[in-house]
Amino acid sequence: MRILTSGESHGEYIAAIIEGFPKGVLIEQDFINHELKRRMQGVGRGKRMLIEDDKIEIVSGLRNKISLASPITVLLRNKDVKIFTQNKDELPVLSIPRPAHADLAGALKYKEADIRNILERASARETVGRVCAGAICKQFLSNFGIDIASFTVSVGEAASHIKPKSVSDIKTKVKNSKLNCIDITIEKSMIREIEKVGSNKDSLGGVTEIWIDGLPAGLGTFMHFDKRLDAKLAASLMSIPGVKGVEIGLGFDYAKKKGSLSHDEIYYSKAKGFYRETNNSGGIEGGISTGEPIIIRIAMKPIATLRQPLNSVNIATKKKEKAIVERSDTCAIAACGVIAENMSAITITESFLDKFGCDSLDEIKVNYRNYVRTP
Amino acid sequence: MRILTSGESHGEYIAAIIEGFPKGVLIEQDFINHELKRRMQGVGRGKRMLIEDDKIEIVSGLRNKISLASPITVLLRNKDVKIFTQNKDELPVLSIPRPAHADLAGALKYKEADIRNILERASARETVGRVCAGAICKQFLSNFGIDIASFTVSVGEAASHIKPKSVSDIKTKVKNSKLNCIDITIEKSMIREIEKVGSNKDSLGGVTEIWIDGLPAGLGTFMHFDKRLDAKLAASLMSIPGVKGVEIGLGFDYAKKKGSLSHDEIYYSKAKGFYRETNNSGGIEGGISTGEPIIIRIAMKPIATLRQPLNSVNIATKKKEKAIVERSDTCAIAACGVIAENMSAITITESFLDKFGCDSLDEIKVNYRNYVRTP
Amino acid sequence: MRILTSGESHGEYIAAIIEGFPKGVLIEQDFINHELKRRMQGVGRGKRMLIEDDKIEIVSGLRNKISLASPITVLLRNKDVKIFTQNKDELPVLSIPRPAHADLAGALKYKEADIRNILERASARETVGRVCAGAICKQFLSNFGIDIASFTVSVGEAASHIKPKSVSDIKTKVKNSKLNCIDITIEKSMIREIEKVGSNKDSLGGVTEIWIDGLPAGLGTFMHFDKRLDAKLAASLMSIPGVKGVEIGLGFDYAKKKGSLSHDEIYYSKAKGFYRETNNSGGIEGGISTGEPIIIRIAMKPIATLRQPLNSVNIATKKKEKAIVERSDTCAIAACGVIAENMSAITITESFLDKFGCDSLDEIKVNYRNYVRTP
Amino acid sequence: MRILTSGESHGEYIAAIIEGFPKGVLIEQDFINHELKRRMQGVGRGKRMLIEDDKIEIVSGLRNKISLASPITVLLRNKDVKIFTQNKDELPVLSIPRPAHADLAGALKYKEADIRNILERASARETVGRVCAGAICKQFLSNFGIDIASFTVSVGEAASHIKPKSVSDIKTKVKNSKLNCIDITIEKSMIREIEKVGSNKDSLGGVTEIWIDGLPAGLGTFMHFDKRLDAKLAASLMSIPGVKGVEIGLGFDYAKKKGSLSHDEIYYSKAKGFYRETNNSGGIEGGISTGEPIIIRIAMKPIATLRQPLNSVNIATKKKEKAIVERSDTCAIAACGVIAENMSAITITESFLDKFGCDSLDEIKVNYRNYVRTP
Repeated sequence: MRILTSGESHGEYIAAIIEGFPKGVLIEQDFINHELKRRMQGVGRGKRMLIEDDKIEIVSGLRNKISLASPITVLLRNKDVKIFTQNKDELPVLSIPRPAHADLAGALKYKEADIRNILERASARETVGRVCAGAICKQFLSNFGIDIASFTVSVGEAASHIKPKSVSDIKTKVKNSKLNCIDITIEKSMIREIEKVGSNKDSLGGVTEIWIDGLPAGLGTFMHFDKRLDAKLAASLMSIPGVKGVEIGLGFDYAKKKGSLSHDEIYYSKAKGFYRETNNSGGIEGGISTGEPIIIRIAMKPIATLRQPLNSVNIATKKKEKAIVERSDTCAIAACGVIAENMSAITITESFLDKFGCDSLDEIKVNYRNYVRTP
Repeated sequence: MRILTSGESHGEYIAAIIEGFPKGVLIEQDFINHELKRRMQGVGRGKRMLIEDDKIEIVSGLRNKISLASPITVLLRNKDVKIFTQNKDELPVLSIPRPAHADLAGALKYKEADIRNILERASARETVGRVCAGAICKQFLSNFGIDIASFTVSVGEAASHIKPKSVSDIKTKVKNSKLNCIDITIEKSMIREIEKVGSNKDSLGGVTEIWIDGLPAGLGTFMHFDKRLDAKLAASLMSIPGVKGVEIGLGFDYAKKKGSLSHDEIYYSKAKGFYRETNNSGGIEGGISTGEPIIIRIAMKPIATLRQPLNSVNIATKKKEKAIVERSDTCAIAACGVIAENMSAITITESFLDKFGCDSLDEIKVNYRNYVRTP
Repeated sequence: MRILTSGESHGEYIAAIIEGFPKGVLIEQDFINHELKRRMQGVGRGKRMLIEDDKIEIVSGLRNKISLASPITVLLRNKDVKIFTQNKDELPVLSIPRPAHADLAGALKYKEADIRNILERASARETVGRVCAGAICKQFLSNFGIDIASFTVSVGEAASHIKPKSVSDIKTKVKNSKLNCIDITIEKSMIREIEKVGSNKDSLGGVTEIWIDGLPAGLGTFMHFDKRLDAKLAASLMSIPGVKGVEIGLGFDYAKKKGSLSHDEIYYSKAKGFYRETNNSGGIEGGISTGEPIIIRIAMKPIATLRQPLNSVNIATKKKEKAIVERSDTCAIAACGVIAENMSAITITESFLDKFGCDSLDEIKVNYRNYVRTP
Repeated sequence: MRILTSGESHGEYIAAIIEGFPKGVLIEQDFINHELKRRMQGVGRGKRMLIEDDKIEIVSGLRNKISLASPITVLLRNKDVKIFTQNKDELPVLSIPRPAHADLAGALKYKEADIRNILERASARETVGRVCAGAICKQFLSNFGIDIASFTVSVGEAASHIKPKSVSDIKTKVKNSKLNCIDITIEKSMIREIEKVGSNKDSLGGVTEIWIDGLPAGLGTFMHFDKRLDAKLAASLMSIPGVKGVEIGLGFDYAKKKGSLSHDEIYYSKAKGFYRETNNSGGIEGGISTGEPIIIRIAMKPIATLRQPLNSVNIATKKKEKAIVERSDTCAIAACGVIAENMSAITITESFLDKFGCDSLDEIKVNYRNYVRTP
């Protein structure tokens, strides 16, 4: 499976093509729109979220909602269009890069004098395309009982220590949360932090945890370093704008513990097969899924754009100036969770198709069942 | 550039082929041997390190030490050979998987009854091939003043808070350390922790920090999610056996801070060009190198094999048994740092060749110079 | 550079995303429309060509016609839409495969009962997406004086033996041809063949020759078999629907000649540098461009769909029946040339960006000039 | 599956690593040696073939001859070693390129003054590594009744018109041929041509035909252009040194025929399932295997090195000189067939693993059987 996404933040369209997706999978546009809506929500979001309604159209690869094995094209027309592919826009040149954004590094890389030509694609709006692709993958995975959820662990200093039981437990608990939270008490502190920081024209990040239930043991492999499931997940999650840390299972806490107190002992019962009573590994050992839930935490840095801008330098004049102020969020940790779920869905689908074939859902189901049944 | 490594832990050879490496680079076998020796050292290592001397031979791709642009082959003959490609060995079947290792997930994935057939490739000895490839990449990067070092940040509860100034500062300070440490005081506590844990037949992990100096701004890109330098580094570091967490710059601490206090303001001087006075981003913004040092921390879990074994299940009989005990280390955090340096070298070289071409060192140098000179 | 195309023959859209295309290239929609129009022309084409006008829209990756280095999206809305991604169409199930088309092999591969679900993507209309991508690559290559043309060598038994001098010579000569021909006399016989065969409800193929002028020596390499320029061109041309043969330079005639009479001797002059007086190699030696024009011929089989259908088998009943008749062309050799030009443009652009970098046109130009100037 | 090969013609070793090869496949070194011996034979070969004995050693990836799913390493130590990776050799600089070889284009590409640094990897000895990998793939495919053979169709003007019935028919007939021929009468003319041309210090090419029996319908796909089986085979065969043309089934003759007389009508019987009575398509329709034998012809140009050398230019002095004379063959068409078989084996194995999974032979067999049984 190969995925390309495209689209500038204020260009005409966001698009994605998903190639190598199997035949016979029911794909509902509404589910994709639902995921996009989840991506737009959360306390701390900016005004762009009020402008866009982010309703997609699938224009190839399905017939009557069923995938054809041909490339799937998803289109989303931006409402807030400011730059044009063919016609000249009237936007002034931007020459003052914002710290923490791609502005300066991008301008240097591409020898670009107008920072707008950098920030349009570097904007996190690009993740709309990823969520479209991920939401299609989620619908594939649901055929095998694989389900993914996320919840906000911390925002600034406000951190929850409640542990969920399962993906469905997470889904139930976040349903009424404004911040994708499973801990209502802490959620209030989180919201207070965001509001306080927002009123100071400052920004915040946070930590999100992703759970994947229902994976069989055996996805990914240690046979070559670039085929490990942990490596692939680390890449797809670290690629989310603003994410600066990824940890699996105990993660950094593993480094503080003794082996005897941290490794997951192995058990067997006829009903469950091999299983663990702990899951410190986060569901991956030796780069392979163990069959336990995959658990990953990611850290997001504060939003790069500040309404009280930081010091910067005009790249044309080389003079010191305050950074430009683009409309932005105060905190986007809830959105980050949704994006992370969908990036995980892409990676898991890739590994799943590698193992079980990729032509048609029926054939994959047969292969899958034979695999899980064989001792 | 493409790299394949091969070799079982107790098979005849470890090998690596590096394809797409440019012409004209001086490659010293001795430097590779030196990196391999560094990989074998550190307090807490097992007896295998006394058996092997890990001297490689390069058998293609160079003529009189200079690369030809043809694939480079590195061979290392194992001394401790127990399994054979063509002849039958006498080793008994292993059927009790060790928790935290690839044993069980691997046996399930490959429907394998003899766990030895899993652990031979899943063993961390596989990283020898990666270090060979990385040490070749380090020699390429040195032509552009790019240098990489690592140091041990913590082992169990013993953690150093000293910050280095640069790669060369790290290199000077770790020279006399037994644990790749820049903090002699804490090193003593670390060694004590390892010795205590070792005498209890238990194991430990730790945290290592990697620095990369001398990179130009402009490697990697946000234009597609899989081309981001942060994503690529996350994958190559998370792929190291035992690594469960990766963070760049402030990493997880970013999630606790406000934007105004964490983003790196931008400065300019004629001598230095654009620069920062802080480097919380760890040298990467928007998935692109900023020109500041790249700083990454990784967390390693405790060694999986315990000499006081954990509970497991015999995969043949399904009965509860103690896990098998293979010869192993107590703590390998110093080795982990060396492997991480070399995996980083591979990733940086890939991104460097993507940007500046890949045919010959002379041509790349011209392209590089033109790039860094052009405003 | 990575390209994905999508779209069913009678679905809502044909689309393409081109990722990794450099910044700063002027891209005219009109030129792409012009190439698409060329693809629709030629004696022997069916009625679909009258329905579609094939005008594309670029909806990302450019700003005011200049590429941004972000993924470029091209959209083309089909007029003749019969199947729908979300809504149920009323089309009857097709169960009789056409020989020589993907119908049967595709139905077996995907376990598909309705052959329409196969033929929609297998239709040569898919090549619209390729031409869009190729026409963008052509506009990139023109910055380096690289130009591509094709001409029809034979249709059925009617074959031209005139040899062109250059790409511009071809372009001049085919301008007034109805069949992309440089030989007006033979063109008449070709047209007669097509008309005769068409009136018998039969179909024809032909041979097309592609020329690429202006390439520097040094694209592609023998260092690994999958990096050879000849191998890459063979793949991209053989992938065109209906193409069953590819030959470079003398091609199959090489097999009949002695080395002394077929190899291109090497000359040098100050004005031209190294050059050849013959070009039997077709511009590629050792998998690398020599700097002489690249010359390739491809053979196209007769159109698969016959209006006087062949014997087939109903895949539902397994009974013998006549193949289904879909609207189709009699001969599409002129279109095949246009598609081949554009597939070649993609492959040449890939090899060009591999050698000279891929970030921005300005940077690539500097790298290119330094390369061609250095002795 | 990924394959890297390495090794210079007169360097210490030829090597190959095959990564992603499934577990549980019996691999006999002797079979690989047998294929290498076949590659060395045929009338018209040079003296190198007397020096080398080409016996390989597998040093990883197998245990007691059974594949472990870990990367397989094949090593072959050259006997005729002249250049060294670490020690200085005494060879003089070569500055006169041979026409038709990679010498000049390679020297220009890599800015290389000593042509020996080009020709060492560009030499066809590189194909030893490919045959090693291909011979491993052949052993995998034999588990599914897939078998591959080749025969020499023509050498210079001497051409055979006999058509074989199957791969096993070819294998029987070429057994006693000195030129991989199934037509003893024409073989004599071929040998005479080679001897005559050889005595004039000239060289010859030829045409070889490759057959692949036993493939199921359904490998490759038209869903994206780079996934077509015809495109992949074209690339792997065109990548063989000296090959300048590839045609599938009727190939270039298709261009002369009407559709009604060339397309393969479809039949069905309970015993055989769907089948054809003709096979003009060469076993591929729409980029997918049809289940009929795959039939491909390739054209090889005359050997590039002539003992009566052609005109060339000294790249140092730019003066006209006769090309250098390296030891070489007069005609290598029989070897070309063996290489083509093995390159095809690699490509077919890739497509097979894509469809049926890639972890273990047992799992693949189950998946394969379910696929071919399901209607």
